[in-house]
Amino acid sequence: MNYPESFQKLVDCFKLLPGVGTKTAERYAFCMLDLDDEKINQFSKSISDIKKNITTCPVCGCLSESNNCLFCDDENRNNDIICVVENQKNVFIFEKLGVFKTKYHVLGGLISPMDGINPEDLSIDKLIKRIKEENIKEIILALSPGIEGNTTALYITKLLENTPVKVTQIAHGVPIGADMEYLDTLTLEMALENRSEVS
Amino acid sequence: MNYPESFQKLVDCFKLLPGVGTKTAERYAFCMLDLDDEKINQFSKSISDIKKNITTCPVCGCLSESNNCLFCDDENRNNDIICVVENQKNVFIFEKLGVFKTKYHVLGGLISPMDGINPEDLSIDKLIKRIKEENIKEIILALSPGIEGNTTALYITKLLENTPVKVTQIAHGVPIGADMEYLDTLTLEMALENRSEVS
Repeated sequence: MNYPESFQKLVDCFKLLPGVGTKTAERYAFCMLDLDDEKINQFSKSISDIKKNITTCPVCGCLSESNNCLFCDDENRNNDIICVVENQKNVFIFEKLGVFKTKYHVLGGLISPMDGINPEDLSIDKLIKRIKEENIKEIILALSPGIEGNTTALYITKLLENTPVKVTQIAHGVPIGADMEYLDTLTLEMALENRSEVS
Repeated sequence: MNYPESFQKLVDCFKLLPGVGTKTAERYAFCMLDLDDEKINQFSKSISDIKKNITTCPVCGCLSESNNCLFCDDENRNNDIICVVENQKNVFIFEKLGVFKTKYHVLGGLISPMDGINPEDLSIDKLIKRIKEENIKEIILALSPGIEGNTTALYITKLLENTPVKVTQIAHGVPIGADMEYLDTLTLEMALENRSEVS
């Protein structure tokens, strides 16, 4: 005996979400039964709208709505700096800080020969083109630390070696509030290497 | 700077699901962007269909599709026994076992004066009526153990005291595979109290 067909279909849909197994999907589906009609319609509409309304900006690769890029079309940004990130999600991690209003460039991944991801699979060409065309003064590499992130950072840095653009990367070290005892050795090594003078 | 409007709306919808906070909802919404159109349409349709197609059986309170109760209308069941459960979800916990093909009765909650849930708020009247009308020989109380479950079980048992129907309840004790060391005292007390002779 299984669930009614419509119910089972919804469970299967929820299972498409990351980290959602059968039990969680069933829990979500039962929760949907308790929502009122208005919320159900809103939920259904939001999902069908997402593909229609949300696209990727052809210039920077960020999310854009109705073909207006939230970043490229924003005139209140520092137009001299591009913050280079791995994916569309990471853009918002930095945006939410609200500290730095730079432009962004989404690479669409990190160089990883093991996984068959080569530089030409990423939007590195586009980045180099933008740097020239938009007269960029600095790019901040805000990539996840690790072999892939470092390889990608190194590759981009090499490409820009003899150009006037300044290439920086976010600091790697001990995060605030961390328990030193539980930190990995690589982070500690980085923290020692990147030490700064106490003024 | 926030997410594009359509994206934010979807995030807000996912936050309606139990145990889903902002971070998880964002993760789900980003995952939706990667799904193909067919899956998105299926997802959207499944949600809008759920309220249209899935109803509650007026007799037993289980989920029913297109007004056909999966349980009441099933002729291959033991018609003498009703398994009494707290909610619609628990029906499927027992159904999935596939051991016992009984009828079900969903109470819609447990008696809990602290939360303002009194016997008349549950479908206990309906259960008593069904027992008489359907000539039921046994009811199995399959309620969550605890104060509310015990109160409800006791209340129903009292109501049926002078009737020929046999009232049983599922066994409470040490679950299979449990680490005895981590079991609560109440479960251990129940396990001792409900001990059975080794034959």
